[in-house]
Amino acid sequence: MTANGKLKVVVLGASGYTGAELLRLIAAHGGIEVVAVTAARRAGSPLGDVHPHLGGLMLPDLVTVDEVDWSRVDAVFSCLPHGTAQAAIAGLPGHLKIVDLSADYRFCDPGVYAEWYGREHVAPVLQRDAVYGLTEIRRDEVAAARLVANPGCYTTTSELPLVPCLEEGLIDPSTIVIDAKSGVSGAGREARQSSLHTEVSEGLRAYGIARHRHAPEIDQELSRAAGEPVTCTFTPHLVPMNRGILATIYVSLKHGVAPEDLRAALARRYRDEPFVRLTREGEAPSTHDVRGSNLCLIGIFADRVPGRAILVSALDNLVKGASGQALQNMNVMTGQDETRGLPQIAVFP
Amino acid sequence: MTANGKLKVVVLGASGYTGAELLRLIAAHGGIEVVAVTAARRAGSPLGDVHPHLGGLMLPDLVTVDEVDWSRVDAVFSCLPHGTAQAAIAGLPGHLKIVDLSADYRFCDPGVYAEWYGREHVAPVLQRDAVYGLTEIRRDEVAAARLVANPGCYTTTSELPLVPCLEEGLIDPSTIVIDAKSGVSGAGREARQSSLHTEVSEGLRAYGIARHRHAPEIDQELSRAAGEPVTCTFTPHLVPMNRGILATIYVSLKHGVAPEDLRAALARRYRDEPFVRLTREGEAPSTHDVRGSNLCLIGIFADRVPGRAILVSALDNLVKGASGQALQNMNVMTGQDETRGLPQIAVFP
Amino acid sequence: MTANGKLKVVVLGASGYTGAELLRLIAAHGGIEVVAVTAARRAGSPLGDVHPHLGGLMLPDLVTVDEVDWSRVDAVFSCLPHGTAQAAIAGLPGHLKIVDLSADYRFCDPGVYAEWYGREHVAPVLQRDAVYGLTEIRRDEVAAARLVANPGCYTTTSELPLVPCLEEGLIDPSTIVIDAKSGVSGAGREARQSSLHTEVSEGLRAYGIARHRHAPEIDQELSRAAGEPVTCTFTPHLVPMNRGILATIYVSLKHGVAPEDLRAALARRYRDEPFVRLTREGEAPSTHDVRGSNLCLIGIFADRVPGRAILVSALDNLVKGASGQALQNMNVMTGQDETRGLPQIAVFP
Amino acid sequence: MTANGKLKVVVLGASGYTGAELLRLIAAHGGIEVVAVTAARRAGSPLGDVHPHLGGLMLPDLVTVDEVDWSRVDAVFSCLPHGTAQAAIAGLPGHLKIVDLSADYRFCDPGVYAEWYGREHVAPVLQRDAVYGLTEIRRDEVAAARLVANPGCYTTTSELPLVPCLEEGLIDPSTIVIDAKSGVSGAGREARQSSLHTEVSEGLRAYGIARHRHAPEIDQELSRAAGEPVTCTFTPHLVPMNRGILATIYVSLKHGVAPEDLRAALARRYRDEPFVRLTREGEAPSTHDVRGSNLCLIGIFADRVPGRAILVSALDNLVKGASGQALQNMNVMTGQDETRGLPQIAVFP
Repeated sequence: MTANGKLKVVVLGASGYTGAELLRLIAAHGGIEVVAVTAARRAGSPLGDVHPHLGGLMLPDLVTVDEVDWSRVDAVFSCLPHGTAQAAIAGLPGHLKIVDLSADYRFCDPGVYAEWYGREHVAPVLQRDAVYGLTEIRRDEVAAARLVANPGCYTTTSELPLVPCLEEGLIDPSTIVIDAKSGVSGAGREARQSSLHTEVSEGLRAYGIARHRHAPEIDQELSRAAGEPVTCTFTPHLVPMNRGILATIYVSLKHGVAPEDLRAALARRYRDEPFVRLTREGEAPSTHDVRGSNLCLIGIFADRVPGRAILVSALDNLVKGASGQALQNMNVMTGQDETRGLPQIAVFP
Repeated sequence: MTANGKLKVVVLGASGYTGAELLRLIAAHGGIEVVAVTAARRAGSPLGDVHPHLGGLMLPDLVTVDEVDWSRVDAVFSCLPHGTAQAAIAGLPGHLKIVDLSADYRFCDPGVYAEWYGREHVAPVLQRDAVYGLTEIRRDEVAAARLVANPGCYTTTSELPLVPCLEEGLIDPSTIVIDAKSGVSGAGREARQSSLHTEVSEGLRAYGIARHRHAPEIDQELSRAAGEPVTCTFTPHLVPMNRGILATIYVSLKHGVAPEDLRAALARRYRDEPFVRLTREGEAPSTHDVRGSNLCLIGIFADRVPGRAILVSALDNLVKGASGQALQNMNVMTGQDETRGLPQIAVFP
Repeated sequence: MTANGKLKVVVLGASGYTGAELLRLIAAHGGIEVVAVTAARRAGSPLGDVHPHLGGLMLPDLVTVDEVDWSRVDAVFSCLPHGTAQAAIAGLPGHLKIVDLSADYRFCDPGVYAEWYGREHVAPVLQRDAVYGLTEIRRDEVAAARLVANPGCYTTTSELPLVPCLEEGLIDPSTIVIDAKSGVSGAGREARQSSLHTEVSEGLRAYGIARHRHAPEIDQELSRAAGEPVTCTFTPHLVPMNRGILATIYVSLKHGVAPEDLRAALARRYRDEPFVRLTREGEAPSTHDVRGSNLCLIGIFADRVPGRAILVSALDNLVKGASGQALQNMNVMTGQDETRGLPQIAVFP
Repeated sequence: MTANGKLKVVVLGASGYTGAELLRLIAAHGGIEVVAVTAARRAGSPLGDVHPHLGGLMLPDLVTVDEVDWSRVDAVFSCLPHGTAQAAIAGLPGHLKIVDLSADYRFCDPGVYAEWYGREHVAPVLQRDAVYGLTEIRRDEVAAARLVANPGCYTTTSELPLVPCLEEGLIDPSTIVIDAKSGVSGAGREARQSSLHTEVSEGLRAYGIARHRHAPEIDQELSRAAGEPVTCTFTPHLVPMNRGILATIYVSLKHGVAPEDLRAALARRYRDEPFVRLTREGEAPSTHDVRGSNLCLIGIFADRVPGRAILVSALDNLVKGASGQALQNMNVMTGQDETRGLPQIAVFP
């Protein structure tokens, strides 16, 4: 802690969108002091050169990871890309609390990581201590963790509605279809032709059909909730908008279960949660109503086909799907008010 | 026919987007002369007042239906809204060929119409003669028809990939999930708060979950193809773009059937079709690649879950999903080259 | 004040975008309690029915103006439309502090109001007491005011860069060209065909050329700053985005004045202002960098044509251009920290 | 010519948007056969890999320039970037008709090219024969040319309304302000951070203020029209849309000239032009009404400031601003109907 009682943090890999969003949220937090921001290729630049909208923050210039003096740091947010994050985090001093926004510590089984990310896990021992940070589901473990693997955006959107239903045995784990739609900020800030305005705007496409890396992550958490192995059908789509994820989830109800039972189970589970809210009956969640906030909205609908139900969940991929949940986890890990610095009102229109 | 050998047509209800799109396509057709365009509330206005982008066409001013002299007309496109179209069409002289773009003549069973559209069918006798105009599937019937009920946009997108699979008995009709995403022009040109730029742009929502009027229409055609009653799961979504529909369709394969069998069946069925094209293996259709054209693109994918497959189809809701297919049907009905006036190349970006 | 020391306010006309934005900002303010929100046509509805993104706020249902008990109210934000606001405000009890977001009290000369708004001013006496609330320019008057007329969005964007230049006599008042571009939320939430996504997205148009109502408002304030009558050239454009205004302003420099002199004058004037910032030399302001914040960014550029300069200013029309500046004015009027509740960091992307 | 009487053309540099747009237009032309398409980095790829929306055209795979057999080619469209185009075109056989879409042959004075493009002109002799291809203004020269330098998008938008006014001496050449707004396809298809959807969508910025390369090109043509040196004020802006340019042009009228005189002059000049149309009085051009077409719309407005007028012009930067005008020029150069293959109806919405 600083003399002023603030948590001293470093943001690693701050030149992308999740780093920028963290800095925006931290600016309104009040209990966190950012002592360093790193970006390998932009080291030496003022933050405002890389993120003009953050030019008004009085933050230090970007540095390399090697330039950080860790002795005066309490905690780290890593926004490094997967592959890079794993070793970087493994090399950090032991006194630091860490939230990793990449996929590098999300898989209990390093073999699954190796299979889907095409490289061996370089820190399997550290992996054993990492906690999967879906805050509402793992709050106690997060509170005790040194290293939290912040969940992916698609996975958070999918798991918040499904985990309680599976834990209570209300739905058939073998028939889950997750049709997910994301804004383009999920693709990051790297210059790629496929993310150009011209290639995204005014059109829609599916991608990574049956081979997206968030599928095994969803499987892992749904399996844990169901108490049996689950393989889900998962299709992501790229929507011409910047922020927001919407998952439309098709499930078969177990015998004797009605759609209202799903609603009741989710209502019980999330009654006291500040960041998860059920929509009223018949009201479909919109990403408009979560943009810029740390909210996840969930709607529950009976299908026309008897015995089936439709769950719809929406969140902002950069907030509850990334930097917001990361800050929420850090709040929990460091004993602060969990909601601190986290907007509950969307920016609309 | 006119002295110049052109088909003389009237476009009813021309003040909306499907009417405008028809007039755009007809302008490049060469074999059609538009002798009147009607719009009850805008009668008396030059077309360019209502549709500035059509101001350069030398077309007559808008009139009311009553002002049309039908004796010199060969054919009619009705872009009137459902409810209004039914009686208007029932009152037209018998020598006219008619393509109705509304839902008013799409249901074989007038009871289904009454249930979903909230009013009794006023022309059940005429209904018996109407042909459901999914051109690629019903070409011969369309050719012989006097009245064609042009299919809905969601239904065309859903049926083109599914009908051949069901006809060949490759998929289980009881497990079909259609997750469909549409651009906002499908909501028409009426001033509604929910269609404002501010309410649509930069966000995504599902709507009409388990109660959209295209569901029974899809059921009707899938049941016919399957030879047994089919009730599908169908969820439409509103995407912040103007044109385009993408349907992501989840199916269970019948015993012994592989995803490649679906591909083979669709390839056979659509081999010679100018407006239906399969994407290559692994390539997901994008609405970008059909915008402004009369194309439907279909992709076929094996799911991660054994025994399941994913079909993805894309088209432009205003063209193949409405006015383009209407013109295609009229070409067939009047013995012209089916592709005349119908773009096969998308406008991109 | 409430027992909890909070300012008790009413928001009139809360069903539109400026009302919603005020409520979003107030939610983060901490020193304001909203005791009533009114909306004539939606009276009786929960706020969340009208503004789903505000459903999580624990605010009272919408009521009519007549239902408000003014005795327990300290201050009023009026988001009523022009024409309606004038009489409604004239009828409010004298103990209330009022910020009016409409144009109804912006014109010193009721004749100008009558000419441009097509109706006689109904409260010319009250008009004399009203202060034009461009906060950075009129802070002392605002602090002493009972009724503040909150400036228009285009006018704020135009006046913040121009007023200091005119006050210091650096530019020729007779040659000012303001080319302004606005997002569509400036057109409000009413259902109009011209504001549909289909009519706005993927296109650009000028409107109200040489006859927009913000022109005389700009003239009034520029004339005051110049000490002589100014008639500006002002052209607004509708840009396919929801929030943001950018004004590109072309000026002729007075003899002996260089573009750097404009920069120096603006730097002096706004040095200590938390909500006005100059961009660095060569850096053009973007509306991206102000979205959701109360900032105004100003850039100064030498033109290729000797003796001319280009000023570019950007702000969020719903924040600094409307509700944010309204809250800023209320903070000043009630002796609170001027920045309270007002974001200085944009939401990007 | 081919045996079928078609013009045999090669498109150089076909992997970008102008190349794709040319191929889309040529597909509907009917009198042109594309015998080769080149793209250095994508040589060997099927066209559909690079441009999925053109996958249905039966065109040859991409090759390098060196692989082209020029003996069987009649004409060339060069979509190569500036810098590259100059030498490539200088090396082409003398029997070819050439339209160059880059800036490499647009400047009469090679010194101006060198100054603004940062390199010496490598083919000053060939430059002397090149014709600046603003078709409506230089039709006769274009018809006789071997090499046409196709004008830039901003320049076409600016020059079509201004040239007749200057030629007739109606406006003061020393006070022209051009405030131009472009869609993002003008930035090309290269992967750049500044063209990402996230960086463009929902925001607006000016760029290249007082130093954009189209400024000297506009100056050159306005000077020719005015018969005296003209230096214009020119500011481009990036608008969150893919296609379209709108220029809002502020002019001072010469003594005794009224805005209606500008309208009359433009009406006379463009009366018989199929691709230039004046909007009616009071009607502002929108890019919506030209999208996908080869049209340029021009509106003329009196300013509030006496003695000044506002011209507004709109076109599709990829069509009349690039590939459409290129095809129009080629039609003129090869004696075909000038309108062949060029849409006059916009795709809307």
